[in-house]
Amino acid sequence: MFLGKVIGKIWSTIKNPGLETQRLLLVQPISASGDKTGKVLICTDSTGAGAGETVYWVRGREASFPFSGREVPSDATIVGIVDEVNIGKRKTGGS
Amino acid sequence: MFLGKVIGKIWSTIKNPGLETQRLLLVQPISASGDKTGKVLICTDSTGAGAGETVYWVRGREASFPFSGREVPSDATIVGIVDEVNIGKRKTGGS
Amino acid sequence: MFLGKVIGKIWSTIKNPGLETQRLLLVQPISASGDKTGKVLICTDSTGAGAGETVYWVRGREASFPFSGREVPSDATIVGIVDEVNIGKRKTGGS
Amino acid sequence: MFLGKVIGKIWSTIKNPGLETQRLLLVQPISASGDKTGKVLICTDSTGAGAGETVYWVRGREASFPFSGREVPSDATIVGIVDEVNIGKRKTGGS
Amino acid sequence: MFLGKVIGKIWSTIKNPGLETQRLLLVQPISASGDKTGKVLICTDSTGAGAGETVYWVRGREASFPFSGREVPSDATIVGIVDEVNIGKRKTGGS
Repeated sequence: MFLGKVIGKIWSTIKNPGLETQRLLLVQPISASGDKTGKVLICTDSTGAGAGETVYWVRGREASFPFSGREVPSDATIVGIVDEVNIGKRKTGGS
Repeated sequence: MFLGKVIGKIWSTIKNPGLETQRLLLVQPISASGDKTGKVLICTDSTGAGAGETVYWVRGREASFPFSGREVPSDATIVGIVDEVNIGKRKTGGS
Repeated sequence: MFLGKVIGKIWSTIKNPGLETQRLLLVQPISASGDKTGKVLICTDSTGAGAGETVYWVRGREASFPFSGREVPSDATIVGIVDEVNIGKRKTGGS
Repeated sequence: MFLGKVIGKIWSTIKNPGLETQRLLLVQPISASGDKTGKVLICTDSTGAGAGETVYWVRGREASFPFSGREVPSDATIVGIVDEVNIGKRKTGGS
Repeated sequence: MFLGKVIGKIWSTIKNPGLETQRLLLVQPISASGDKTGKVLICTDSTGAGAGETVYWVRGREASFPFSGREVPSDATIVGIVDEVNIGKRKTGGS
């Protein structure tokens, strides 16, 4: 999984039926110390995350696990909200 | 998923039977603000997207979900057309 | 899928039984305008493509779809030969 | 698989039920000689690895194999702790 | 698949049971002309490859195909040993 920050969302009327009722959040990948790393991507969400929150997301086939029983065509899904990042003895707040 | 813009298509007579009847669209990955990011790729489509439209596409195993019941050998499929991108309070039109 | 050009092949006596009878082609990824992009890779083939031809290939789990009924341990398979690339109004010949 | 060093962990209260009871370790990818390579990621663990240990991790669909019988939405899991890295005749201690 | 050269191995006592009895080889990705390309990775092996040999490896879900009947948590497996690389008319020895 990778760390990211929710920075916005996508509005989309025409989409694959498998994505209906899914929120499509824009996520900026970040490092453990909060710096931007890599390209913004669009994630489905299984946590209720909101704008500004630090989250972690899973990619690939596993991104559809949280929606078991449905075939959601997503390759990136937020699976948790970060409370705190611990590196050695340093602590970094989640949001 | 990632944002992209449909910029063209591929004509191909000889192809795997699993791809027959599929449109093969050229997609330029773009950032939330519309800048080019990364290499052009070839996507199958589950939305009816046309040239110039801003779309989002799914990659990997999930790219064959929209064609359930068929084994389409695609690793990238357009799953939605973007109406609007919201970053913070800024809005960016879809096409 | 991505565009590529077949530039050679691999000879290999000792290989996984799942790859027996498979041709192993060297493919140079190229852009829509024919420039080299990225590292040469080894593809299995489901189209009969030959040296010099412009093709497109699928990667990941889908690369074994064309060989249904067999578990071919391939992560990249040529699934079509390009006749023509259309970008806007510009046309580029396939080979 | 890739080599990495466990450098910390993530605390997270709100997460996908599939991740409950899982430790979420921060892993810094490293080269065979111990240099940092690439971005820190979050791994689930199937070995009991602790901070400072050199490990190897598997990514993608296989990352959920160690949790068979459960659908753990993880795309990166530590699957071993390194005792020693042998390159030619050079030996490098694991931790 | 990609070309690589076996450059060493990993010793590991504590590992996921799915990896027991597996050799863990260090592989340096190389180009068709033998130059290093990209980061060293750890591969399981289905060919009996040894140090110094030029091989090709498969990544992702397919990396577990050679071990059918077992769930081996590997994302990279050597599936063949290269005898010869042919690019156009140029031939390059495998080892």
